[in-house]
Amino acid sequence: MEKKFFVDVCLSPHLYPVYHRDDTIVVVVDILRATSAMCTAFHHGVNKIIPVASVEEAAEYKKQGFLVGAERNGIALEGFDFGNSPSSYMSPKIKGQTVVISTTNGTQAIEVSRKAHKVVIGAFTNITALCDWLKKQNRNVLLLCSGWKNKFNLEDTLFSGAVAEILLKDKEKFKSGDGALAASLLYQTAKKNPYQYLRHSSHAERLAAMGLKEDIRYCLSFDKTTVIPVLEGKYLVKMV
Amino acid sequence: MEKKFFVDVCLSPHLYPVYHRDDTIVVVVDILRATSAMCTAFHHGVNKIIPVASVEEAAEYKKQGFLVGAERNGIALEGFDFGNSPSSYMSPKIKGQTVVISTTNGTQAIEVSRKAHKVVIGAFTNITALCDWLKKQNRNVLLLCSGWKNKFNLEDTLFSGAVAEILLKDKEKFKSGDGALAASLLYQTAKKNPYQYLRHSSHAERLAAMGLKEDIRYCLSFDKTTVIPVLEGKYLVKMV
Repeated sequence: MEKKFFVDVCLSPHLYPVYHRDDTIVVVVDILRATSAMCTAFHHGVNKIIPVASVEEAAEYKKQGFLVGAERNGIALEGFDFGNSPSSYMSPKIKGQTVVISTTNGTQAIEVSRKAHKVVIGAFTNITALCDWLKKQNRNVLLLCSGWKNKFNLEDTLFSGAVAEILLKDKEKFKSGDGALAASLLYQTAKKNPYQYLRHSSHAERLAAMGLKEDIRYCLSFDKTTVIPVLEGKYLVKMV
Repeated sequence: MEKKFFVDVCLSPHLYPVYHRDDTIVVVVDILRATSAMCTAFHHGVNKIIPVASVEEAAEYKKQGFLVGAERNGIALEGFDFGNSPSSYMSPKIKGQTVVISTTNGTQAIEVSRKAHKVVIGAFTNITALCDWLKKQNRNVLLLCSGWKNKFNLEDTLFSGAVAEILLKDKEKFKSGDGALAASLLYQTAKKNPYQYLRHSSHAERLAAMGLKEDIRYCLSFDKTTVIPVLEGKYLVKMV
């Protein structure tokens, strides 16, 4: 029997050390809204993204003249160029630029997983391209949910379940950890109407209260792009 | 509006520090098999349980003449009186005794949550008594899944979902965190036949391979007892 590859889901960046393996591809997931925004930025022509965990680092880059997006608790921080709304990364002024991004959860997840075999960025907006690529890699796949301040969140889990479901269709190639099993079962329940399903999730409620329902709808829409951002050293770049 | 209490689920002992609050009741959950076995032991007349995290501590108690249960990776360790099969705690020789228990996951979860307002032990085998008690407490409730070596597991999540579903029926009193929302949605899918549903979970597969299907069926059966074990200092005792 050929070796099977694992698909699993790590439900919080804080749990990442428990799941880490050197030989695994990590897909960082922060559906509302960091990884959705990163896919959008590359689709609209950004050249490189420098993800940074702290606001201090982001401010340092800002001083050096970079375009910088900085968000905490759903709010774009003052003194920076963007927050993490995907719509702000559709501007022509980002074309060809290097953009620095720091967010509440997503950039922390990138930080903890740097030592994985490869780190790529996933969102509903690039799901088909991402899964097509993952299927070809002959590697274990770990979906790393960014969560909310290290707590479990529902939207990242649903996306991870969607990817797990797609990969696990190939039973000869992939087998499932418990996290992927649970996430794909949740996704099966939710997929008819993820927007409706997420309405009681804590972060969707938070964003809806900020008048950001359109952002939520965008972040839950499939295949807006075929870009797969991948980490190379300190940069996210477009996979070629 | 009256204050609502949170029901949430912490999916791994490693995540507990992220969820800890001094004012919260923690329900420690290790369905296969530690918390199921603890409920069984009290039901069959054990006086006190001393849960210990390490095998070394368990061996120290054994030297002192205590009855000691010690399990790692599903296997009862040699030189001790029991493993963590509930059936081994139905023996008349435990009646009136203090029993020391150390297991792969469950006793670690008790260890990390000691500073909560109160720590109680939950299992399908005491679910109704547990929920009736929780409903009367006017406290936040955190279901702490023991998982498998700090990874997510399915059976503890399902039980947590079952408890969350029961508590959240009282919408005036309780509101749900994302973890409880996801766990209760999973439980709704699984509850017609949890045994069937769990057959692909990693630990059920592990135990089935060891010939322990009967243990799994027992651990998934409801309301074998009305006992609620509660932590008092270093002892678990029967709540009165």
